[in-house]
Amino acid sequence: MKETITERLAALRALMTEANVRATLIPQTDPHHSEYIADHWQVRRWLSGFTGSAGTLVVTADKALLWTDSRYFLQAAQQLEDTGIELMKDGLPDTPSINYFLTHNLQKGDVVGIDGNLFSIAETEELASTLARAGMKLNPEFDVIDRIWTDRPSLPDAPVFIHELKFAGEEASSKIGKILAGASEQGATAILISALDEIAWTLNIRSRDVNCNPVATAFLYLSPAGSTLFIKEEKLTDEIRTYLADNGVTTAPYSDLHSFLTALPADARVLVEAPRTSVAVLHTLGDRALQGSSPVPMLKAIKNDVQIAGIRAAMEHDGAALVGAFMEIERMLNTGEELTELAVSDILTRFRSQQPYYFDESFETIAGYGPHGAIVHYSATPESSSTVEPRGLLLIDSGAQYLTGTTDITRTICVGTPTDQERRDFTLVMKGHIALGTAIFPEGTCGMQLDALARQFLWKEGLSYLHGTGHGVGHFLNVHEGPQSIRLNYMPAPLTPGMLTSNEPGLYRAGIHGIRCENLVLTVPAFTTEFGRFFRFETMTLFPFDRNLFDTAIMTPQEVEWVNAYHAEVYTRLLPLLTPEQGKWLREKTLPL
Amino acid sequence: MKETITERLAALRALMTEANVRATLIPQTDPHHSEYIADHWQVRRWLSGFTGSAGTLVVTADKALLWTDSRYFLQAAQQLEDTGIELMKDGLPDTPSINYFLTHNLQKGDVVGIDGNLFSIAETEELASTLARAGMKLNPEFDVIDRIWTDRPSLPDAPVFIHELKFAGEEASSKIGKILAGASEQGATAILISALDEIAWTLNIRSRDVNCNPVATAFLYLSPAGSTLFIKEEKLTDEIRTYLADNGVTTAPYSDLHSFLTALPADARVLVEAPRTSVAVLHTLGDRALQGSSPVPMLKAIKNDVQIAGIRAAMEHDGAALVGAFMEIERMLNTGEELTELAVSDILTRFRSQQPYYFDESFETIAGYGPHGAIVHYSATPESSSTVEPRGLLLIDSGAQYLTGTTDITRTICVGTPTDQERRDFTLVMKGHIALGTAIFPEGTCGMQLDALARQFLWKEGLSYLHGTGHGVGHFLNVHEGPQSIRLNYMPAPLTPGMLTSNEPGLYRAGIHGIRCENLVLTVPAFTTEFGRFFRFETMTLFPFDRNLFDTAIMTPQEVEWVNAYHAEVYTRLLPLLTPEQGKWLREKTLPL
Repeated sequence: MKETITERLAALRALMTEANVRATLIPQTDPHHSEYIADHWQVRRWLSGFTGSAGTLVVTADKALLWTDSRYFLQAAQQLEDTGIELMKDGLPDTPSINYFLTHNLQKGDVVGIDGNLFSIAETEELASTLARAGMKLNPEFDVIDRIWTDRPSLPDAPVFIHELKFAGEEASSKIGKILAGASEQGATAILISALDEIAWTLNIRSRDVNCNPVATAFLYLSPAGSTLFIKEEKLTDEIRTYLADNGVTTAPYSDLHSFLTALPADARVLVEAPRTSVAVLHTLGDRALQGSSPVPMLKAIKNDVQIAGIRAAMEHDGAALVGAFMEIERMLNTGEELTELAVSDILTRFRSQQPYYFDESFETIAGYGPHGAIVHYSATPESSSTVEPRGLLLIDSGAQYLTGTTDITRTICVGTPTDQERRDFTLVMKGHIALGTAIFPEGTCGMQLDALARQFLWKEGLSYLHGTGHGVGHFLNVHEGPQSIRLNYMPAPLTPGMLTSNEPGLYRAGIHGIRCENLVLTVPAFTTEFGRFFRFETMTLFPFDRNLFDTAIMTPQEVEWVNAYHAEVYTRLLPLLTPEQGKWLREKTLPL
Repeated sequence: MKETITERLAALRALMTEANVRATLIPQTDPHHSEYIADHWQVRRWLSGFTGSAGTLVVTADKALLWTDSRYFLQAAQQLEDTGIELMKDGLPDTPSINYFLTHNLQKGDVVGIDGNLFSIAETEELASTLARAGMKLNPEFDVIDRIWTDRPSLPDAPVFIHELKFAGEEASSKIGKILAGASEQGATAILISALDEIAWTLNIRSRDVNCNPVATAFLYLSPAGSTLFIKEEKLTDEIRTYLADNGVTTAPYSDLHSFLTALPADARVLVEAPRTSVAVLHTLGDRALQGSSPVPMLKAIKNDVQIAGIRAAMEHDGAALVGAFMEIERMLNTGEELTELAVSDILTRFRSQQPYYFDESFETIAGYGPHGAIVHYSATPESSSTVEPRGLLLIDSGAQYLTGTTDITRTICVGTPTDQERRDFTLVMKGHIALGTAIFPEGTCGMQLDALARQFLWKEGLSYLHGTGHGVGHFLNVHEGPQSIRLNYMPAPLTPGMLTSNEPGLYRAGIHGIRCENLVLTVPAFTTEFGRFFRFETMTLFPFDRNLFDTAIMTPQEVEWVNAYHAEVYTRLLPLLTPEQGKWLREKTLPL
């Protein structure tokens, strides 16, 4: 493998020399700026041997360096050993940024080459201006991987299928009408959508192109005069073609996008969004590009009544599956059977896959036992997978794709008898979870304004967590979606009725344990007064928190009452789906504190 | 007066015709983008007859319109009567924006004229691009008021004096060094400071040019090669000139700024900040302008130990003055003497002016009785001033300038026996005040993240207030300063130890009463843990809240304890400055709840 990496880098360098490129950047993404990508786009993995889900490789004539973040320091160090690729630990004070490295290791006049398909307009602007200030140049057309990756996996060709109206709740033609109206308000004559979940939502189509993300690899051009889906022909059936045609959408090969855009009339104004459109598309469009704000993310985020009813059903099925899974986990621990972190993941999938409308996991399960729980994005591997012992905390973050909706839930359970610190830590996290979950807020409030409600009790004790408190969740789509979020960073999208968002404060004590408590919550109207409209959250997820971990001495009566009422609802809603034995187990798990 | 206004507008229109200007905008500001301005800059008031502190006049060949916000709707309607000037109620759904009005009432090719000295770079960019999209032009050199306002007040010429080091705590030369280092980091060779409070802080000078704002009208150019203060010669004494020279600053006439900038070498790079620099300055600098972020606001906001000690002293003196004033107010109410809102203001000034280091008020007192309290920026006039009756709530927002620091405090007191609604409303506001005041938060937290802590209890009952919860406060300077704020809008400046900020949630029931509870709080370190540095607020203001208005039934024990501890500190700190009679009064006002 090490020799292979060296050979691949040598082949790349030969092409760099040929193109007069002094450095190239290989990011971990695809032309749709996806968070999760298909094998075809795993260029950085192929070139470096590093398999982590985040990181950028930089190759110069005599150096190769991989920037990745703290969750991958150990794994990257192992996988890069003897490849000659240097690990750059992103986020550490001594690690230069990629831009700093480039401007301090190249000479004036040097050219940096990138594949403009893999860099968004927004990313490229920053890179180009940094290089320009240092007297260097950017070549955004250095797209050579096909020439050296001879056995590159083809573009995914999983079949496209229709997400039926009984689940989606709105016809594609209706959505297209709204999107075009929004684009027209900004002076656009058309819109080009690159993001795969946006395309899937717009057309009510799904596929299996990306692990855990039921999307189809495509570009979608919408205009009142006619719309075109650029997609690999093999993915389509006559039924799908007819369905698309009925919604005013013709199809064209995936690779035809640029020639199509080139042929657009000079007075076309195509709306593109800088963070989610490739700079290659921008260059092809030229003056026909209108950079603006896509109406899709907001439309997609606000779930309709059919979707919401589906989400409620999905939560009941997911909760019932979790009852079976957690009973099994408990049984194995009680009988002393060996239970590894990987086995936890398998058990969850086994129970979920028996539920109606189950399609897939919505992300790879995080089952972190003890110190592993403190690694925020921990993913057990056969090498790392711990055996769960009868003590300490086990953090389980998992979710599924159902045709009715996407779930995402984290529970932290105590395997043995909890210590005082475990109970106190857990309860502080839950107090924040409850404070956010019970918040009422006026129309126009964005997530950053509410984030501190979830953190306040931890902060008072000098504790904190650095991840976001909440992310948007798609509907039988990506488990992470925008535009709303509840986090330390400012994102202006207001929390609007119909949005599904996670509520997941946590606490991570390095080397000891990790705690995260996550439900999905729906923004719903609360009331209207002379001061305006007010919204609140309705908790959608249905599964009990570990009663043994609550320290009621530091809870208010209202907080205790919230837990008891939530547990009572969980019991009532899940009971009809359970066996008598499961019902008995859940009864005990949901007794009042 | 009405005829005068008509004549003035006619004279302006004649000059508009001469300059081929089809519309002109007259804003309420000065070339320093001040919130409060000297008489010389009261152009909008002179041209329109409207005396409010906010509003923009737009004049076309056949129309004149004044945009102002809700607090001035009534006053503006009265003052504009029979002038032919139309009142445009800013913020109402049916009121077009000025930009909308211009682009829909002028023709393609028409020119809009503004005095570029009165429009910031940031404001002008938006206006210019709006006009450009509509095919219209902007002439930023339409500066003609001197030609028609023949008896225009001269530039203020109050003497400049030194804010002594024993109050300021840092030499001007040291501040200049830090500012130039910050400018240099951005690639600038110099910096031009236009904001009057920034200049006053930098040079440790003060004056009386603007009511309640102890600033001197000037521009300050700083460079390592030498610095120049552009200021009216009459304001200076030899002592001040020597003092400035000792700090490396020469002086030049105020009107010499543009000729000085024009004469700068072509390779000069002068840092200017878009929101606080005139577009006229930008045009004069041309390529020598480097738009960036001024280091001054952050340096100024972080008070040093000498300033903090001064603020503590100012708070004690202010609190002692308030004891005298509130006793007098109470005496008049008890004896049935007539007490008007204007009289409240006079009483406050009388007691404050007897305190050591007193200089001025820091803003015009807001004394709002009953329904007047619900008008957020209410300022009593001889016509409006209510007589306080023995019932209902009286809101008093006031502050003073001491050489040692600037104060700003709001108390809401109950004049008779409080109703249940008055107590409940007041207590909900206080719960927010306490939640914010006792927050602990990690380094890097900005005000928007904490704002909801102050609003959460109101929101839960469908109540809210639309003003900010907190603004920065200068040190013997403007009562409103940046860069930090605690409000619904995002401002990225983190709350940093040494910053003085207001904590002033409120509740305004139209036609009934207004409540606001305001203390100034200092950001101080709380503790450092493995999770980083944490900060908290130390309350600086010293005066009791009205004990009769607390509804302890809806307070937590911790909230009651906070009030009692605060009141105990107020009593202890103020007692040494009080007469025995005052001490007795304060004792009663600070008894535990």
